[in-house]
Amino acid sequence: MRTRVTDMFGIEFPIFAFSHCRDVVAAVSRAGGMGVLGALNFTPEELELELKWIDEHVGGRPYGVDVVMPASYEGSDLGVDSPTELVARLQGMIPAAHRQFVEDLLAGHGVPPLEGGEPTKVLLGWTDATARPQVEVALRHPIALLANALGPPPADVVELAHSHGVKVAALASTPRHAVKQVEVGVDVVVAQGTEAGGHTGDISTMVLIPQVVDAVDVPVLAAGGIGDGRQMAAGMALGADGVWTGSIWLTVEEADTPEMARRRILTATSRDTVRSRSWTGKPARLLKNEWTDAWESEESPGTLPMPLQFMLVSEALRRIGRSDAGELATFPAGQIIGTMNQVKPAKQVVFDMVEGYVEAMERLGRITDDGHD
Amino acid sequence: MRTRVTDMFGIEFPIFAFSHCRDVVAAVSRAGGMGVLGALNFTPEELELELKWIDEHVGGRPYGVDVVMPASYEGSDLGVDSPTELVARLQGMIPAAHRQFVEDLLAGHGVPPLEGGEPTKVLLGWTDATARPQVEVALRHPIALLANALGPPPADVVELAHSHGVKVAALASTPRHAVKQVEVGVDVVVAQGTEAGGHTGDISTMVLIPQVVDAVDVPVLAAGGIGDGRQMAAGMALGADGVWTGSIWLTVEEADTPEMARRRILTATSRDTVRSRSWTGKPARLLKNEWTDAWESEESPGTLPMPLQFMLVSEALRRIGRSDAGELATFPAGQIIGTMNQVKPAKQVVFDMVEGYVEAMERLGRITDDGHD
Repeated sequence: MRTRVTDMFGIEFPIFAFSHCRDVVAAVSRAGGMGVLGALNFTPEELELELKWIDEHVGGRPYGVDVVMPASYEGSDLGVDSPTELVARLQGMIPAAHRQFVEDLLAGHGVPPLEGGEPTKVLLGWTDATARPQVEVALRHPIALLANALGPPPADVVELAHSHGVKVAALASTPRHAVKQVEVGVDVVVAQGTEAGGHTGDISTMVLIPQVVDAVDVPVLAAGGIGDGRQMAAGMALGADGVWTGSIWLTVEEADTPEMARRRILTATSRDTVRSRSWTGKPARLLKNEWTDAWESEESPGTLPMPLQFMLVSEALRRIGRSDAGELATFPAGQIIGTMNQVKPAKQVVFDMVEGYVEAMERLGRITDDGHD
Repeated sequence: MRTRVTDMFGIEFPIFAFSHCRDVVAAVSRAGGMGVLGALNFTPEELELELKWIDEHVGGRPYGVDVVMPASYEGSDLGVDSPTELVARLQGMIPAAHRQFVEDLLAGHGVPPLEGGEPTKVLLGWTDATARPQVEVALRHPIALLANALGPPPADVVELAHSHGVKVAALASTPRHAVKQVEVGVDVVVAQGTEAGGHTGDISTMVLIPQVVDAVDVPVLAAGGIGDGRQMAAGMALGADGVWTGSIWLTVEEADTPEMARRRILTATSRDTVRSRSWTGKPARLLKNEWTDAWESEESPGTLPMPLQFMLVSEALRRIGRSDAGELATFPAGQIIGTMNQVKPAKQVVFDMVEGYVEAMERLGRITDDGHD
């Protein structure tokens, strides 16, 4: 296959795979697509180890790194560069009533405290201060792409990436966002529909992609609801140069997804997700369960702005993950989880998608050839 | 073009156009697609006149009629067949606080009462009792398709249609709905994504269509977010045999859309719609404005179940339509309104869609031919 993004990155298939798992990233790149590692959860030191591993296992194929530099978040105006100081200042902004709500929710489900000595990362890469060190680590590796979620990346970060010969992508949920991103130098726009997992807007992929394609001159990747070759073909029919996928990699063989979450995804329907602010303070599509319901209930104190909400809930989510309270264990997941019901190697997912794409093209060809489906 | 639905109906293009306006229905059918008249707003006598007009203006081409027979609604267990008695019984079920909320909302926006002698239709075709007479009228005309929204049509209605040589379609927002519909004999499933206007589920078109296509053997039409040839191509790539469109006909030359609404649609973005129960009691995508916001506000008494909510608000919506309170004038509209910004004849919309489809196919062909976009 040949589009502007296969040319740009020297890849065989215009399939981008977002994953927090290095094994998945390397496997997709080796299969002819492009793996993109979500750096959010990693300290700079951890990220260094992950990327070193990928370098050793990706067989010289291109891969990318995804960071989160939100255009706006609480504390961005404090002028604090030190993550430690920033955390301290932000902790003071979390109301006691919110902490109590979380404690009560966990107590109601019998979730025990963490064992001693287990520090929780409360800020992750949700801020400029914590994401920049990740960018610096990433650019020391032979990455082909730096992707940014939640708004246009800072112009100096785009410049820095370009000076390393690294292309920059950014996620957009409206055509206006896409235009702003291209203005700061972004090379590829990931236009992401509301059905996508994680942070997402409210316009659907079907409606959004043509609007973004018409609004910008750079290549566009279709994201949100892309899981098989038919959906890939649909994304390309809408005008995209490739597809950006996420949720479908949660259940591949290589994924380090916790077993409880994997089982839940394999049995879920497409109605089992919800856009909720209960994870980070910004709307993100999550698995719908008693956690997301609780934050919508009458007892809910409401969610806090980013990054306070994640700081508030990060330890709780970890405690839930270690407990038997599966009914509270939520995580980012797109509507495509409704069609994910078997575990396959990542390579097989790539090949199945390409094969499905070719089949869809053949079927479409027969429609206009006056042949019969 | 040739698919199972072009064969089934003897039409040139698999483009179905839902509209409450007879002029649009006839124009689309004459252009080679298939117009489908929404009967909801019409009394049986009015529907008779509309269909007679279409018969005289459709040039012998096939067209359809769409009715609403919800699988469940308040009062369906009362065993009341007389629409007049049903209305009386249902009126008594509307709480005074709800009536007061509506009056206060209108007073706050300076909406005057209706001039005397203007009766408001409060029930429309929202119930079995009111929709059946519409079906009887429709089947006296040479219609090719009877479509039903809000669940599988009653099995005897499907049989009746079939005995008249009329095919039956039904709207589905989940694969489970689609299977149930085929079980009662539906010939065509309209799989409608959340981005669609009017009553709609929560799964996006991109995710829903392949699931429905895999779940049933009958032809599937893709609905929700379909406005141009790229979106039509995407719908077909997802496995559909054709597309079902609605919102895009609100602004064509032939449409009898009130001028205020037409102007609002031409300037709206795709973020200006919302799924709301404030119209009928079931979730429907509407233009988002002060009306839909009011029903989500803290003062809102909450919405009533179908058909009580529409009975509660029908006169109010009519008063708003006659007033200058454009900020309260809502109506069903899909996210596609964000790309509707010019007025064209219906025929031109059909031809542009077909041309765009062919262009999308050519572009897709170059991708796999190793040519260049």
